[in-house]
Amino acid sequence: MSQLLRVQNFLLSADGFGSGEGQSLEHPFGHANPADLGAWAFATASWPNRTDGGGTRGLDDYFTRDYARNIGAEIMGRNKFGPQRGPWENLDWQGWWGDTPPFHTPVFVLTHHLRPSFTLADTTFHFIDATPAEALQQAKAAAAGKDVRLGGGVNVVKQFLEADLVDTMHVSVAPVELGRGERLWTSHDELLDRFHLERVPSASGVTHLIFWRR
Amino acid sequence: MSQLLRVQNFLLSADGFGSGEGQSLEHPFGHANPADLGAWAFATASWPNRTDGGGTRGLDDYFTRDYARNIGAEIMGRNKFGPQRGPWENLDWQGWWGDTPPFHTPVFVLTHHLRPSFTLADTTFHFIDATPAEALQQAKAAAAGKDVRLGGGVNVVKQFLEADLVDTMHVSVAPVELGRGERLWTSHDELLDRFHLERVPSASGVTHLIFWRR
Repeated sequence: MSQLLRVQNFLLSADGFGSGEGQSLEHPFGHANPADLGAWAFATASWPNRTDGGGTRGLDDYFTRDYARNIGAEIMGRNKFGPQRGPWENLDWQGWWGDTPPFHTPVFVLTHHLRPSFTLADTTFHFIDATPAEALQQAKAAAAGKDVRLGGGVNVVKQFLEADLVDTMHVSVAPVELGRGERLWTSHDELLDRFHLERVPSASGVTHLIFWRR
Repeated sequence: MSQLLRVQNFLLSADGFGSGEGQSLEHPFGHANPADLGAWAFATASWPNRTDGGGTRGLDDYFTRDYARNIGAEIMGRNKFGPQRGPWENLDWQGWWGDTPPFHTPVFVLTHHLRPSFTLADTTFHFIDATPAEALQQAKAAAAGKDVRLGGGVNVVKQFLEADLVDTMHVSVAPVELGRGERLWTSHDELLDRFHLERVPSASGVTHLIFWRR
């Protein structure tokens, strides 16, 4: 089995936005409320930040527990890594995720502003200035035979879709409209010439969209 | 997280039968056609016997790829292991699955007719005469912290449900009636006092039932 590039648990609004306008340290998703988009995931037993032993084990939990399955590396954009723009003023920022990031693999951050790699627990962040194809090649080599997760944000997913590098994509569409922000698509119909699609409504109110390459 | 006892990908007819009448070497499911019950799983990319690199990656594939996730042992009934009944005439029979069984863990076969353990590839079969609670205790110890799969058949699942030992259960209900054979339930409503239930229809025509303990 060849290595896949997989988008997993990508949170989207009903009108196609993956994050709101005005990202900042205090508001990683801009004006969007992360709970509006991600409550279905936060409620599951397999949500990575859960420590209480509870949570739901229905359909949504299949999606949260698939997040890390057979993943050997992640590619993300700089805006997922942090709120800074332009040259690094210093290297104090090490991501939103504290001492134990939820990736547990090498992570390749796409940026024009390079900085040295660093490791937190079992996650190592590398900073690369590369095309999607080049980044994927590096990530696949680091993944040691496993798949690569495309972590977002919206612009990174769009770039990799345009380069036709995405093999599978799971998007959860929440019943909320954002109106503005980072938009993944006007309609997912744009993708149907290249991907199979299944729409799976969940009891939690979101609709899971599962795409895989034709 | 404590160890769970999980029923995974249990195939059922619309009228509640897990296998037909008259199991034999040639007909492991009796008069039931396994394809009628399991075609949804056989079509997926993650079906364990698939070697062609193809297959679907939609909703059904989430269920087939969850089959082995975090499983450290399986418990099955003797009728799942083979078509023989009563004392072993000889020890030639080593299961339906050839040289590389799809379990890859210790497997505990419940039977009143003991025989020595044996190993095929990375699966070791143990034969035990035990109550459900005793069998689960042995399987959990062998699973080394991982979950235990309850593999069936129908009578074994019923015994463990009656003993209230099942934590999660995934049943796929196919749009076919068998009329006779091994019946799991008259209605799954019997379980709703103890379990949450989500019903998830799939594009393949089956309905996935996901139960988890209240």
